This record gives sequence, C-alpha cells and structure tokens, in this order.
Amino acid sequence: MNTTKVILLKNRPSGKPSSSDFEFTEEQVPEINDGEILLETTYVSVDPYLRGRMQDAKSYVPPFELNKPIHSGIVAKVIATKNDNFKEGDYVSGMLDWKEVQKSTGEELHKVSKDNAPLPAYLGTLGMTGLTAYFGLKEIGKPKEGETILVSGAAGAVGSIVGQIAKIKGCRVVGVAGSDEKIEKLKKDFGYDDGFNYNTEDDLNAAIQRTCPDGVDVYWDNVGGELSDAVFFNINQKARIINCGAIAVYNDNKVPTGVSPQVFLIKNSALMQGFIVSNYMDSFPEGVQQLSKWYGEGKLHHEDTIVEGFENIPQAFIDLFDGKNTGKMLVKI
Amino acid sequence: MNTTKVILLKNRPSGKPSSSDFEFTEEQVPEINDGEILLETTYVSVDPYLRGRMQDAKSYVPPFELNKPIHSGIVAKVIATKNDNFKEGDYVSGMLDWKEVQKSTGEELHKVSKDNAPLPAYLGTLGMTGLTAYFGLKEIGKPKEGETILVSGAAGAVGSIVGQIAKIKGCRVVGVAGSDEKIEKLKKDFGYDDGFNYNTEDDLNAAIQRTCPDGVDVYWDNVGGELSDAVFFNINQKARIINCGAIAVYNDNKVPTGVSPQVFLIKNSALMQGFIVSNYMDSFPEGVQQLSKWYGEGKLHHEDTIVEGFENIPQAFIDLFDGKNTGKMLVKI
Repeated sequence: MNTTKVILLKNRPSGKPSSSDFEFTEEQVPEINDGEILLETTYVSVDPYLRGRMQDAKSYVPPFELNKPIHSGIVAKVIATKNDNFKEGDYVSGMLDWKEVQKSTGEELHKVSKDNAPLPAYLGTLGMTGLTAYFGLKEIGKPKEGETILVSGAAGAVGSIVGQIAKIKGCRVVGVAGSDEKIEKLKKDFGYDDGFNYNTEDDLNAAIQRTCPDGVDVYWDNVGGELSDAVFFNINQKARIINCGAIAVYNDNKVPTGVSPQVFLIKNSALMQGFIVSNYMDSFPEGVQQLSKWYGEGKLHHEDTIVEGFENIPQAFIDLFDGKNTGKMLVKI
Repeated sequence: MNTTKVILLKNRPSGKPSSSDFEFTEEQVPEINDGEILLETTYVSVDPYLRGRMQDAKSYVPPFELNKPIHSGIVAKVIATKNDNFKEGDYVSGMLDWKEVQKSTGEELHKVSKDNAPLPAYLGTLGMTGLTAYFGLKEIGKPKEGETILVSGAAGAVGSIVGQIAKIKGCRVVGVAGSDEKIEKLKKDFGYDDGFNYNTEDDLNAAIQRTCPDGVDVYWDNVGGELSDAVFFNINQKARIINCGAIAVYNDNKVPTGVSPQVFLIKNSALMQGFIVSNYMDSFPEGVQQLSKWYGEGKLHHEDTIVEGFENIPQAFIDLFDGKNTGKMLVKI
C-alpha cells in the first residue's frame, strides 16, 4: 500500500450538500518519524455539525478549508509506531482526517479497547455523542424527577442517548422523529414514554399537547424550525430549552425565521441555551466515567447505522439530512 | 370625602391600549375594621408589563378581571389606622388598586420614609424597577469587567438603572432608545458610553456593529422585535441575553415572528433567559440593601416622568408605548 485515498472539501455546499461538494484524491502514505504513529481508519463518524464547518462563517471552530481534507471523529488502528505510548494493533479515537491512512503524533488521541465496548461505541455513547447528551442535560437541562422532557431528533445519535439519560433521571420522556418506525423503536428500544412522527402530524402544537399533557419542562432541540416554534407554545414555568442542533435549518441559504421566543421566555421565566460539547472539556473524564458506568449496567442501549466503504463517507453524511440514520451514523472502512 | 374614584378594566385591549379600554367609576370610601388601615394614593407606577395582564392569557400572574380595578405599584399615605403597625402619616408602598382611597390589612405593604429618598424612588430605583435591573443582571447577565453590554429601552425605567449598575461592574455600556434627546441624556446623566436612536438608523445591524465594535457580551432586552433580531448577528461567544420585556410586540394581535435564534445561540454557546422580578423575592432584602447603598453613594442617578392627576393614569400608561417617558413613568395624585 503506497497510496491512500483522501476526501477533500471541493465546494462550500449551497443548501443540502451533494456529492459534487466532495473530491476524492490519492496521496502517498507518509513516512513516520520519531514520536509518530501510522493509523489506518476503522470507523468514521459523520455528524450534522460538520455542515456548519463547511460554511465560510464565523463560528466556534474555524471552517474547513477548500481543497483540504475534511476531518471528524474517527476510530483508527495503529499499524506502525515510533512512539512508545502506542504499540501496533492499538486502537485510538480522536479528530482525524478523512483518509484511509494517515500519521499522527498521538496528541489529542485516546486509546480505546475492544474489550470494554464495541469500537463504534467510542464514537457514540462513550464518545462525543454521549458526552454531548450528558453535559447538555447536566449543565443546561437539569432534568428533575417527574418532569416532562421533549426530545427532537430523538432517534438520532444524540437524541437516543438524551432520552435514556432523562429516563435514568426519572423524567417522562417524549420523542419526535421522522417516521413511525423510528417512534416505535424509541418506545421499544430506547425507553421513551411517548412520541410522534412530525411528518404525519397536521398540527405540531396539537401533537405536543397530546403527548405532553402536563406541558414541556425541558426541550432538547436537535432540529430548530417549525417544530421548535410549536414548542414555545407549550413550555412550562422555568422551562429549559437546550439548543444542541438545528438540522432543519442548517441547509437554508437565508437566515431562518419563525416565532419570536421572547414573550414566551418572559412569561414562563424560561431559558434557551446553545452549547457545544467542548465547552465542558475539562469535565470529560467525569462524563466518560458516568457514561461507561451506565453502559456497563446495560442502561444505555446503543444502536448505530453503519455504512461500509471509504467511498461512501460523503453519501452517509448527506443522508443525515434525510434522517436515514437511527442512532449514530458511522462508516466502516 | 365620602366617595373615591376607581379605574376599572373595561375591555381587553386589542393592539395598543386606548382610553376606551378603561372606565372611571366611584365607590364609597370603605369603613376600616380592626387590623386595617385606610390609604390615600400618592404615586402610581404605570409599567409596560401591565399590558400583558390585560390579556386573558396564561402567564406568570392571573390576568386582570374585566370590570374590576386595575392594580400596580403604588405609594400611599396612611390616613386612618386600626392597625398598631401603622400610624397616620406613614407612607407605604406595594401593589394596590387604582383608587384614590382604599383600605388594606397592611400585609405585603412596606413602610417607606421620605427621609431616606424621595417617595417616587420607592417605585423606581429602590422598588420593583431597581430590583428588576439588579436581579436580572446578577442572576442572568452576570456582567464582567471589560465586557460590552447593550441595553434596549435604555432610557426607560429599568434600562436607565441597568446601564448604571453595569457601569459600576466595569462594563462598556451602550444604549438604544427612540430619540436623539434620550441618547444624549443616557450619555450625560446615566453614564452610558455610547448609544443610538433606533428611529433614525436605516440598518440596525450596522448601528450595533458601530457602537459595539467588540461585539455584544450581554444584551438587556426590554423591547423584542427587529432590534433584538439584529442583536443575534452581533453576539459574542457565551453571550447572555436577558429577556426582561418586549414592548415592541406587546400590542401585536398575532404571534410575533422574526429571526430564529437557535443557530446563533448554538454557534456562540449563548443563552437567552426570561424572568420576572418575583422569581427572586427571597433575595429582595439583599437587593434593596445594595441598591440603597449605591443610591446613597450617588451612583444611581434617578429620573422620573411624572404626570399629575388621577384621571391621567390611563393616558400615562398608554404613552409608555410611544416612549413618552424617560426613566420611570409615574402619576402623582
């Protein structure tokens, strides 16, 4: 193997990303120097937030550069090493380039073990996805026993974990997703108490009222848009809205508009707060420990949508915007 | 004096309140029983939030009833007493009816002294208005030295105190108001560093960028509407938006719409939080003590718009929505 495939960002997507926004190329497999390791990609995480990084806009992280490799959460295998901290056959997880093979100094990578959990779990429940759910709930949502939490994008990577943590906390958990099959799965496999399919409801407000008869105390918002507008009409006093994602509007070419939340926040003394998981980086060890404990106790059901083949990474990413995944969307190389 | 004038809510306003929504009537001055006091109204506070209570809508307090007296913050003089806690000539402040004379048990009223501050201050800087500014900043805004705070409705009752407290905290304070005279006054009398008149700016976004070149860390929102939409484009990482009021949309007959904040909150890890001052009732003594200390030290400039005459209460209230006040709008009886 002398060359490795690489995926570059060719165009900044306008609207929904398409395969023409990505370019496949090849480069020489690099030589490793002292202190470096050579990594073979095993699993690639594709996530809605990457859409934001494809824009050339001020945000919490710099945008991807055109004609440079995209990177995301990856689990990789050490196939050669000149670094005493890693041996051949080790698995690591971290932010890496969309390449079949690449080198690294090992900084900011974590060793992970197949013995403790299947490798995909380190990109999901025990990785950034799980930590996102954990810290968003702990630091913003603060769910209390007996409260109602509504979760949008409930069958997605983050949403499916949010619901399960909220159940552990004693909440009534209601999920919104885009198909009847997903709603069934939420109830059967992820412990949701109720839910509805936003694609088949004529009146989202009525659907929220029906499934949340005591109102909404916590709203985990993965989607934004119309559904989130309808939630404003149903929040309780001191409600907390966790703005984790806005997949419904990420592909919009204009500024999204909708119901203005101010009057709803005022009359309910409610809050909306956005976050990214790296805000809580200093507490990651605590989060991983708690998630691993729950996982070990069988309290966090884990489900991935796994696509095979390096060449399918762009399409797997594009399919996120059509809700083709249940749980974490991963590509196995 | 055998009868007293009373102001009733005659109609729930549609759009901007008008004088026909109010009805003047007379009733007998009541006899007082043991434990009661007779009160003569001295100053009446008219406030934008009363507009919300005139609607028949679920909110943090029950709506005013039709054909019943309206009530608001009032300073009154004890003119007869059968309660040992009060003597004739005492002044009290509290929530009382729009009547020239009324009786009370004295519960939930506070004695106030002309010796410590002019009576209007007890409805403003040292009353609910000051406490609103104090707790909104302390509990939500959390302004830090060197940060930029933008205040809308800056020349109003709450806004003029917010700016001064933020200056005490070492912030750069920028105010938005509806006339050039108000902006001049903000800078000259209330210590604001800069500001702009929203009525003469073509591009609110540009006006915010010009007056807040380092972005907005804290936005005290008294108005909602277009201005608040423009702020979303200018918030910094971890910005805090305090939703205190939405006077720009209180008179709307339909649900207000505008820029959806979710993507802005996410990419800046920012928060928006609504509140009412009574959320912090348990800490009022601390708030009053701190405000009185600053007031005594001359750090809180105090300015009222005082209208004279009981019969002018409704018009004074209506005039709030045209921004005819600087500082607290009061009616002296």
